[in-house]
Amino acid sequence: MAQKIILDCDPGHDDAIALMLAHGNPDIDLVAVTTVGGNAVLEKTTKNTLGILTIAGITGVPVAAGCVRPLIREGEDADVHGESGLDGVVLPEPIMELDRRHGVDLIIDTIMEAEPKTITLVPTGPLTNIAMAMRKEPRIIERVKEVVLMGGGVHVGNWSAVAEFNIKIDPEAAHIVFDAPWEVTMIGLDVTHQALATDEVVARIKALNTPLSEFVLGLFGFFQEAYRDAQGFEFPPVHDPVAVARVIDPSIVGTVRAPIRVEIHGDYTLGMTVTELRPAHIPADCNTRAGLTLDADRFWDLTIDAIERLGKAAANG
Amino acid sequence: MAQKIILDCDPGHDDAIALMLAHGNPDIDLVAVTTVGGNAVLEKTTKNTLGILTIAGITGVPVAAGCVRPLIREGEDADVHGESGLDGVVLPEPIMELDRRHGVDLIIDTIMEAEPKTITLVPTGPLTNIAMAMRKEPRIIERVKEVVLMGGGVHVGNWSAVAEFNIKIDPEAAHIVFDAPWEVTMIGLDVTHQALATDEVVARIKALNTPLSEFVLGLFGFFQEAYRDAQGFEFPPVHDPVAVARVIDPSIVGTVRAPIRVEIHGDYTLGMTVTELRPAHIPADCNTRAGLTLDADRFWDLTIDAIERLGKAAANG
Amino acid sequence: MAQKIILDCDPGHDDAIALMLAHGNPDIDLVAVTTVGGNAVLEKTTKNTLGILTIAGITGVPVAAGCVRPLIREGEDADVHGESGLDGVVLPEPIMELDRRHGVDLIIDTIMEAEPKTITLVPTGPLTNIAMAMRKEPRIIERVKEVVLMGGGVHVGNWSAVAEFNIKIDPEAAHIVFDAPWEVTMIGLDVTHQALATDEVVARIKALNTPLSEFVLGLFGFFQEAYRDAQGFEFPPVHDPVAVARVIDPSIVGTVRAPIRVEIHGDYTLGMTVTELRPAHIPADCNTRAGLTLDADRFWDLTIDAIERLGKAAANG
Amino acid sequence: MAQKIILDCDPGHDDAIALMLAHGNPDIDLVAVTTVGGNAVLEKTTKNTLGILTIAGITGVPVAAGCVRPLIREGEDADVHGESGLDGVVLPEPIMELDRRHGVDLIIDTIMEAEPKTITLVPTGPLTNIAMAMRKEPRIIERVKEVVLMGGGVHVGNWSAVAEFNIKIDPEAAHIVFDAPWEVTMIGLDVTHQALATDEVVARIKALNTPLSEFVLGLFGFFQEAYRDAQGFEFPPVHDPVAVARVIDPSIVGTVRAPIRVEIHGDYTLGMTVTELRPAHIPADCNTRAGLTLDADRFWDLTIDAIERLGKAAANG
Repeated sequence: MAQKIILDCDPGHDDAIALMLAHGNPDIDLVAVTTVGGNAVLEKTTKNTLGILTIAGITGVPVAAGCVRPLIREGEDADVHGESGLDGVVLPEPIMELDRRHGVDLIIDTIMEAEPKTITLVPTGPLTNIAMAMRKEPRIIERVKEVVLMGGGVHVGNWSAVAEFNIKIDPEAAHIVFDAPWEVTMIGLDVTHQALATDEVVARIKALNTPLSEFVLGLFGFFQEAYRDAQGFEFPPVHDPVAVARVIDPSIVGTVRAPIRVEIHGDYTLGMTVTELRPAHIPADCNTRAGLTLDADRFWDLTIDAIERLGKAAANG
Repeated sequence: MAQKIILDCDPGHDDAIALMLAHGNPDIDLVAVTTVGGNAVLEKTTKNTLGILTIAGITGVPVAAGCVRPLIREGEDADVHGESGLDGVVLPEPIMELDRRHGVDLIIDTIMEAEPKTITLVPTGPLTNIAMAMRKEPRIIERVKEVVLMGGGVHVGNWSAVAEFNIKIDPEAAHIVFDAPWEVTMIGLDVTHQALATDEVVARIKALNTPLSEFVLGLFGFFQEAYRDAQGFEFPPVHDPVAVARVIDPSIVGTVRAPIRVEIHGDYTLGMTVTELRPAHIPADCNTRAGLTLDADRFWDLTIDAIERLGKAAANG
Repeated sequence: MAQKIILDCDPGHDDAIALMLAHGNPDIDLVAVTTVGGNAVLEKTTKNTLGILTIAGITGVPVAAGCVRPLIREGEDADVHGESGLDGVVLPEPIMELDRRHGVDLIIDTIMEAEPKTITLVPTGPLTNIAMAMRKEPRIIERVKEVVLMGGGVHVGNWSAVAEFNIKIDPEAAHIVFDAPWEVTMIGLDVTHQALATDEVVARIKALNTPLSEFVLGLFGFFQEAYRDAQGFEFPPVHDPVAVARVIDPSIVGTVRAPIRVEIHGDYTLGMTVTELRPAHIPADCNTRAGLTLDADRFWDLTIDAIERLGKAAANG
Repeated sequence: MAQKIILDCDPGHDDAIALMLAHGNPDIDLVAVTTVGGNAVLEKTTKNTLGILTIAGITGVPVAAGCVRPLIREGEDADVHGESGLDGVVLPEPIMELDRRHGVDLIIDTIMEAEPKTITLVPTGPLTNIAMAMRKEPRIIERVKEVVLMGGGVHVGNWSAVAEFNIKIDPEAAHIVFDAPWEVTMIGLDVTHQALATDEVVARIKALNTPLSEFVLGLFGFFQEAYRDAQGFEFPPVHDPVAVARVIDPSIVGTVRAPIRVEIHGDYTLGMTVTELRPAHIPADCNTRAGLTLDADRFWDLTIDAIERLGKAAANG
């Protein structure tokens, strides 16, 4: 049976691919999409989400806008997604309307109305919506199946020496998520820096030759340049769909059980996902896992397959 | 025209008096009551609220339960309210039902549906509900008339050397409230330690001779003992109704305009409401005020008058 | 028998008066003077010290320069002492030489060579030298009689809303001093803001009519203007000699036993001397005291008497 | 010409080897040894130092005891060195006396009396002595050639998830050292976890067959067991001599220029040496380097050669 997921995202180039993988893969049932301010301001991430769903021919999934800004600190935009949050492509007019509920309420309602332990939360942006939902309706914590999030990192940072963007933007929200007694799998930079859109990947997508594949190439083109300029990458890491891939097939990401704590007080370590790898300090009932390795071939097979399916369906629709 | 207020409270003995003053005074229109975990856990503060409204004959006001726990930190109960949060009295079975909405949503809906700048928020517990509402619907910030809250203090603490209970329990929520660009008046311990239920006050209430006045005496009796034991007070300070009294008649509380910041990182100062009283450091557009003095006679006149009105109405109803 | 004191200072206008009171009063035996960076950089505070001793005719007291900068943080100068740290007067060429030892070593040697419990430390600047001496030679902690320091405050700040200059400049050093198991009396702003150089005080000093009294008037003149402009005082507070006066006659300063902790981690409270005044939280063996009240008449009597004695001695010398 | 070094240490099993390498290698001139509280209390680390020097036949080097405890925080002992700080061996009665100066003064005097830029500081314990010397005599900062210290780590911790013992014990002292404008090379756990006393290493030392080699085997035997039990190592890492080896031959340790900052405020990251490896954030004039790789063969060749030389000299002496 397909895994039910809520994708909480802030598109963002790699969020776009995550949406396609989530809907294009037959083993995932995308039951709700919520948006959050992050890679760009909420208004843009929401507009981008509707545009991506439209171009990918994804309908019938409720989409709701969530929180405008982080819990405690001022927000800031990521610098690798351009002015619109999705520079490099032109979005169509959306063919769907937003759910009238707030994103936080869509998360809560979806979880509380589903069978217990059937919904997986897949956040790929700052964790503000998730934290707000947990504090508004704490019962979701025991009702969710698990949380598989893109964010953080064990040995790598991109928004400071040791912190990743999604976590550093709203460290208190991340602290709330990592600190709760549910299963959390962190798909951090150690993993996602292995999910590179190489020339070979690009060639394979080009060969699909659908409007959607063209759209994806537009995303990758902009992203490649942005990552090259800002962080010196030859090929851009495509972070967010790795979290979705982990839900589809856990064996794609090698993880370790390890306590993960979000630093919310450091001068140089704010937003670090401090991961305890010393064996003697890992309790038997540890409920957090850190991703470390990626089966990149399998990841791209799944991702390209989803883009192909969606592209053909859209062409046929 | 009567001032419309939302009372966000955690009864608590003094919250009970605040509810009576808010509903018994003709210059206040109590449009909603929300509850929060604080003096006791949410389940108890909500139960207490319904019981108080029942005994005071207050009907027709929507009441909703809000947040169970503080935003970031673990909650703790105040120690001066006893096991039930309202020890010393027996509550009747409530005659009303809770609003089906979450307290946070009742706050948001009430503000967004009213004319702009007509609603005054009067929080008398930890500020969790208010902060959650601000982050879920940021437009309430410019739509509210003002915030008059019981909490904090300039020169006095009760939950640490320099922090007051309501603020220290959820300092991040308090930080969110004090940091926003709306008008905030802090009715802190400097003021409320002047609102003492003296023998004379007790005698005046006794003279009312209604079931409600008997109930109030029960509250004061327990509270006096608790404060004497825990903090060495001869007469107990009755904190929360002072915030309501400030709304009824601003001249009752002497205030100064001064920047107020909530310390969320100190070792010994966590939850302190740091008030800048140095003249050269107070900007012209400062939007926070700190209460310093109280016209205690006028405060008790208003409070006893409200208890009298409600008591007679209940007797007549 | 006269009280032996080491004065650790950063002149500074009020340090100058402290030096005069310490040497001019017959009940004090000034056994060493050390200098520290604070009101101005070390080079200036040391030069100022030698100049003051010269004009006051103080000889035979070893003087050593101490630490250039705070332990952890960058230093900053106080803004009320002018460019030289002692603007408003002209200093004579010093007639004495500095001790060849470092100030930290002069403190250590003086304490370790004296009978136990005979030396009182009187710091009137940032506590860097004292903290360094404690860490270099921890035995001084049990060997000193007591520490009577000018700095901090219970309800008042001058270098932030809640912190005083001497403590805020080197909060970690202050933390070391307040945290050690010796007797510490804090002569903070609550007290020293009562030690005002009023017109009457100035008139009495003028009447002394010695070169030294003229020098003191020059100090007061500049200080008055600086305090009026920066902090809105009509008459300038003369902080530092109050600590010396407390040693001469403890009854001059009303104190309470109370735990005092220096905040070294707060965003808005860095350097605050957090004073626990709640009776239930004051342990029986509390080794810190906070000054609250001042017998200002007696303080000025002592101070003016010392200026008179020194002035006459210098005139006769 | 031989490199002049001051070894500031807290023996400790690996400090013992560092002392041997520093004195046994012909390219190093060990001009002073200072001790600090760390692996054990100061009294023990000082006693151990004298015993090691005696058994290794090292004479003519001034040895002075330094600071008893960290600058700000309470001290704690490392747990892998046993009760004495050097369990597993029996030390001879020392044949030398301590220098009468304090360790901090021996460091200052040695640097200030030598030609500028000729002395390399090699700290292998907590950095308290070094920080104290820097604050007492700031001119040493520009006068030292460089600092090559054992401590910290880029990706590894041993005293918390992300902090190493020497740094975490006195993070403020480490902050002072890393923050100053001198050349600092961090030989952290990334490097020293490659300096393992393998069976082959042990066999080579055994083959030396001198009283000193027997002593070294005793050290390794205890250390192996302690590290196996506490941290799951098959062979124990021998940290401290790697810093000495780096001075002898910089090519032994592969380093990167990178800003390194010591976290002194984090909840979970206290004492972390936060290393900025993102190319865009490394300034051209960066004065700190982080060791990452070790030529372990060359390291052991040097170390065993030194033990051999000292062992023969002692046997002949």
